[in-house]
Formats: sequence, structure tokens, C-alpha cells
Amino acid sequence: MQMIGRFLEDFAVGQIFRSSRLQIDEERIKSFAAEFDPQPFHLDEEAARETIFRGLAASGWHTAAVTMRLLVDSDFKPAGGIVGAGFDEFRWTRPVRPGDELRIESEVLEIRPSRSRPDQG
Amino acid sequence: MQMIGRFLEDFAVGQIFRSSRLQIDEERIKSFAAEFDPQPFHLDEEAARETIFRGLAASGWHTAAVTMRLLVDSDFKPAGGIVGAGFDEFRWTRPVRPGDELRIESEVLEIRPSRSRPDQG
Repeated sequence: MQMIGRFLEDFAVGQIFRSSRLQIDEERIKSFAAEFDPQPFHLDEEAARETIFRGLAASGWHTAAVTMRLLVDSDFKPAGGIVGAGFDEFRWTRPVRPGDELRIESEVLEIRPSRSRPDQG
Repeated sequence: MQMIGRFLEDFAVGQIFRSSRLQIDEERIKSFAAEFDPQPFHLDEEAARETIFRGLAASGWHTAAVTMRLLVDSDFKPAGGIVGAGFDEFRWTRPVRPGDELRIESEVLEIRPSRSRPDQG
């Protein structure tokens, strides 16, 4: 299986990649939370009302995972796949509620060859 | 529903919270990836061999979600729940393979009242 995708020279600073939209479903909020983040504000509408979220909200790890899906499905597509070593300034700015639709926009801010693996971009 | 947990004064710098272990299962690696991170190195052992991972590896979002589960189940338990605004210096240092067991250790490095919500710690 060969992945086709963009190489370093196919990216340019200022390029913007937009995703489609994905709606966050109440049942998936609850089932994701039951497996990975079992806290009242992610599991039950009534219990959630008395918490800091004032109502059911998706786990931040659920929205992070959905964000990844939107990125993978977008036209970003670097050759070799989307592989990150980590994150800085990762922020959850607002709660995601049942029925909310998420979409992402990614912008190329800087392009530089890898210091440790310059042959891989 | 009332959450019982630690208040600000119940934490001390240097406290360490350890979690139990959770084994990462090959089928869950693949099904998580199919939903959230559908790239060859997370979906299929054979396809993964020709990628940067040289074999099947869990999505970083899967391991992040499992990390959250381990944290929620540990004795950390701040009153009001584990709610974060974001992350700095979030790193995936090594691939997680089928059968690997994850556990976490959290240490209290600093304690300070919230600037925006001092009543909530």
C-alpha cells in the first residue's frame, strides 16, 4: 500500500486547507466518555447541569479525535501521513454540545526540513 | 449528583498520583483509528510496515484518550472534575504497540488559585 500525498515542495506558506463538517452526536459523546473520560459532565445531561459546564459537553479528547479525523479527510495530506511529535499551545476554547458541527481550517505558517530526519521533510 | 474530590488545600507540591495499568488491544487500535485517525499505520499491520512506524501503532489520540481514562481513575480527583483549558508541551515520545500496557504518574508541580475564577481553585 502506497500513500500518495504532498511532499515538502508541494506546501507553501499561507496555504489553507479546509475540512468538511462533522456533527457531534449526543450518544457518541456519552459512549466516548464512558470509555475514556467518565466524568458526570460528559455522561449525563442532568448531572452535567450542576457542573462547570452547565450541561452535557463532549470530552476534549473526543473533540480532539474528531479534529484529527477532519484533518485526515481534508486536502492537507502530507506524503507519509500526518504524524506529529506533539503539541504546543493546544487549547479547548469552548464546550462542544450535542448537535454542534465541527470543521477545521489549517494554515501553513512555516515550512522547514526536519532537523533529525531531513530526508523525510 | 455531587462530585466528591480534593479541594485546592488538599493538594501539595510534590504529591504524586499513580494510575493502574491499561493494556492497549490491537482491535481497539484499529477501530479507534477507523473512526478518528484512518491512516495505514494505525489500521493494518502489513501496510504499517512500510511506514515511518514500521508496524501497527496506536493513534496518538487513542493513547491520549487512554491517558485521560487512567487519570480519571487515579486518586488525583480534584473536586469539580478534571477540566483543562489546554496543553503546553504535549509530546508523543514513542509509538504504542498492540499489547503495550500504559500507566501514568502525575506530580503536583505548582498550586495556584485561578486568576479568572479564584472561587473555583
